[in-house]
Amino acid sequence: MSTEKIPYKIYLTEEELPRAWYNVRADMVNKPAPLLHPQTHQPMDLEGLSQVFCRELARQELDDTTPYVPIPQPVLDFYRMYRPSPLVRAYCLERYLDTPAHIYYKFEGSNTSGSHKLNSAIAQAYYAKEEGLIGVTTETGAGQWGTAMSMACAYLGLQCSVFMVKVSYEQKPFRREVMRTYGATVTPSPSMDTAVGRRINAQFPGTNGSLGCAISEAVEAARKPGYRYVLGSVLDQVLLHQTVIGLETKAALDKYHIRPDILIGCAGGGSNLGGLIAPFVGQKLRGEADMQILAVEPASCPSLTRGRFVYDYCDTGRVCPLQKMYTLGSDFMPSPNHAGGLRYHGMSRLVSQLYHDGLIQAAAVDQTSVFAAAVEFARVEGILPAPESGHAIRVAIDQALKCKQTGEEKNIVFSLSGTGYFDMAAYQRFNDGTMTDQIPTDEQIARSLAQVPVI
Amino acid sequence: MSTEKIPYKIYLTEEELPRAWYNVRADMVNKPAPLLHPQTHQPMDLEGLSQVFCRELARQELDDTTPYVPIPQPVLDFYRMYRPSPLVRAYCLERYLDTPAHIYYKFEGSNTSGSHKLNSAIAQAYYAKEEGLIGVTTETGAGQWGTAMSMACAYLGLQCSVFMVKVSYEQKPFRREVMRTYGATVTPSPSMDTAVGRRINAQFPGTNGSLGCAISEAVEAARKPGYRYVLGSVLDQVLLHQTVIGLETKAALDKYHIRPDILIGCAGGGSNLGGLIAPFVGQKLRGEADMQILAVEPASCPSLTRGRFVYDYCDTGRVCPLQKMYTLGSDFMPSPNHAGGLRYHGMSRLVSQLYHDGLIQAAAVDQTSVFAAAVEFARVEGILPAPESGHAIRVAIDQALKCKQTGEEKNIVFSLSGTGYFDMAAYQRFNDGTMTDQIPTDEQIARSLAQVPVI
Repeated sequence: MSTEKIPYKIYLTEEELPRAWYNVRADMVNKPAPLLHPQTHQPMDLEGLSQVFCRELARQELDDTTPYVPIPQPVLDFYRMYRPSPLVRAYCLERYLDTPAHIYYKFEGSNTSGSHKLNSAIAQAYYAKEEGLIGVTTETGAGQWGTAMSMACAYLGLQCSVFMVKVSYEQKPFRREVMRTYGATVTPSPSMDTAVGRRINAQFPGTNGSLGCAISEAVEAARKPGYRYVLGSVLDQVLLHQTVIGLETKAALDKYHIRPDILIGCAGGGSNLGGLIAPFVGQKLRGEADMQILAVEPASCPSLTRGRFVYDYCDTGRVCPLQKMYTLGSDFMPSPNHAGGLRYHGMSRLVSQLYHDGLIQAAAVDQTSVFAAAVEFARVEGILPAPESGHAIRVAIDQALKCKQTGEEKNIVFSLSGTGYFDMAAYQRFNDGTMTDQIPTDEQIARSLAQVPVI
Repeated sequence: MSTEKIPYKIYLTEEELPRAWYNVRADMVNKPAPLLHPQTHQPMDLEGLSQVFCRELARQELDDTTPYVPIPQPVLDFYRMYRPSPLVRAYCLERYLDTPAHIYYKFEGSNTSGSHKLNSAIAQAYYAKEEGLIGVTTETGAGQWGTAMSMACAYLGLQCSVFMVKVSYEQKPFRREVMRTYGATVTPSPSMDTAVGRRINAQFPGTNGSLGCAISEAVEAARKPGYRYVLGSVLDQVLLHQTVIGLETKAALDKYHIRPDILIGCAGGGSNLGGLIAPFVGQKLRGEADMQILAVEPASCPSLTRGRFVYDYCDTGRVCPLQKMYTLGSDFMPSPNHAGGLRYHGMSRLVSQLYHDGLIQAAAVDQTSVFAAAVEFARVEGILPAPESGHAIRVAIDQALKCKQTGEEKNIVFSLSGTGYFDMAAYQRFNDGTMTDQIPTDEQIARSLAQVPVI
């Protein structure tokens, strides 16, 4: 251990900011399996992917050999508006828990999108602009991705059309309003604006919508000249951009000679976790360092801990490519828990491969215990976490308490991926004592897994 | 001008953080006039003030000779959780406006309370704790102060009872929920819990409440053993704590040899403005430097630009001391504009005195033009400002555009006092085009000024 005094917040200077994203696939022996075409089941190539995504992003999706991808200067300039994000030493939480562990968190919530999502949104908007596009389409569930994409598009003068899961659109009118303030068009999904939306509305009158349905609508809406579809998680291109989180975290830790013993991140589609851990996984793969890495998912949507590692569809409408991943089946409908960002039926193929190869571990936690941890954290550390981030906090606290029992002075590092300002209805339910845990039965999971295609 | 490259964000190190607040009254030739007892009209003394406020805070309120007041170590420790706040060079806004001016803003919104209010909340909570109190009572309108006080009390284990203006309580349920999450009791005002609340409810059945009424209830509720009342603005003690904003701003500017030409802050009760400008006013008073200082208020509640500099009551219930200030009369009811933090009928006696002596100037701006500036700012700088802060942004943009005309390379510095996450109903009204400007008539102001006591 260094005896140097570690500040409450470790900030990098602008000169120390990463200049390139790190593509961990270049160091992986077992690469993530290729994406497959939804009809032909053949590996997707650049031409195929470019029909949906910007060409440069499609290229990034396919590239599993280039270790460092330079961050374009305009993206760096944008990053400088809200990055570096601080790596915070949670002195107050340590005192409160009375633990010998040293707890650090990388705080990604101090930008208006309220989360790490902006790191990839600006990159995707930049490549869209470079390609000469007019605008992009996307979907949003919890609203963080839609907000981030709206901000990035406003900055670059691109149109942004967001399909927002209808129940979120109605329950989170203020999220919608932030996107509108940033100039985006927000449409409740399923809508009557797309063929797939009309079909779903006819089939399920009065449906509240789902992320899978909103994805299908956004992909269809992108099929016009000058538009492409963008996605906020799951894809390798997104995880690539998010490595700015991990690279900054590693640089900040290195600055004070801190070696992490445990890394923790919440995992929905895997973008936040994948971004945090990439450079550390790289160290493990190259044999330079070792540490425990924990992916935390909600017990109500346990893709890693109870899913199967197979090829599956990425969306309910089955219009997107298939990927080999831990999945609960694309028909799996998680209970309406309050971490909208962690309700995806699958997991990034990159994170899935790392988990399959034993490089990372996973834990599933109950919603009420997550909110209990989030409230404890808020009261001692001052930051109100997003419910998603609360999952990482829960496990970080548990690990710190374990250190208290064993007397170990471990360095625990977790990602505080976002803030909970637009999730107060969930906090209210917790404060009122009316929140419940909703765990799927084995039969329920088996039923949706039975729909997984045989490939 | 220095040729040194100025970063997007100037952060002080923790060693460079201020260790003492600056009491600008010590350098003022014309001190703010003393507070007067609401019944006797005699100057308030320590004993009198200590019946309402903590003793140490009462002492600070009365002290106009000590230039530097050491910040207690536990308050410094708390500050380190969210301070230093960045001084941001608004490169993107400058490019967007195509102005030769250099624009800087001190961003006080990146803590969960969403504003600068926390700077004084933790100080007040600390002194309450030191005095052995059980808890504090206070009121909140927009909700930023109530949130900040809840956070500070949660951190120190104090009870916090917040009287929230009924219309805000109902229209901003999520603000209320943040306070509850931090363990506070939140009561809609007027309530049936206090004599004054019951009287007002009987007199005006179905009233929406007002800040003046909530103050009266909170003061009454503090009259029990182990409790004191705390206030988030107007008082000199509050402005003292808020000087941490200005001291950090000055240190950051000095670090890069930047001399401000114009300082801008929004002004409701005066805490944010007073905190920002104090060390610069000190320079002016000591003849060390000169610059223009602009207080920005809403045209709907124009205490500085259309009020009178006289002794007046600080609250509608007339239970609080009188102070000599610019006032519209304690009966003045501003139109229900959307900057809840700028709807006070008067102005800090310190800011009032500086304005009266010509050390600062004032401007009143229309609500719709404020929101137009706030949205422009959000789109290019990424931060969604509180409506209050939008007032400073409006004038900063206007000044930068003036520089564009004249070709002057002025350094414009403003305070971005908070974020607008809980003000999306107001943004929605602006986005929908249904927002209006509501300017009081001369008759309306004359009517409420007629009620001002003759002293």
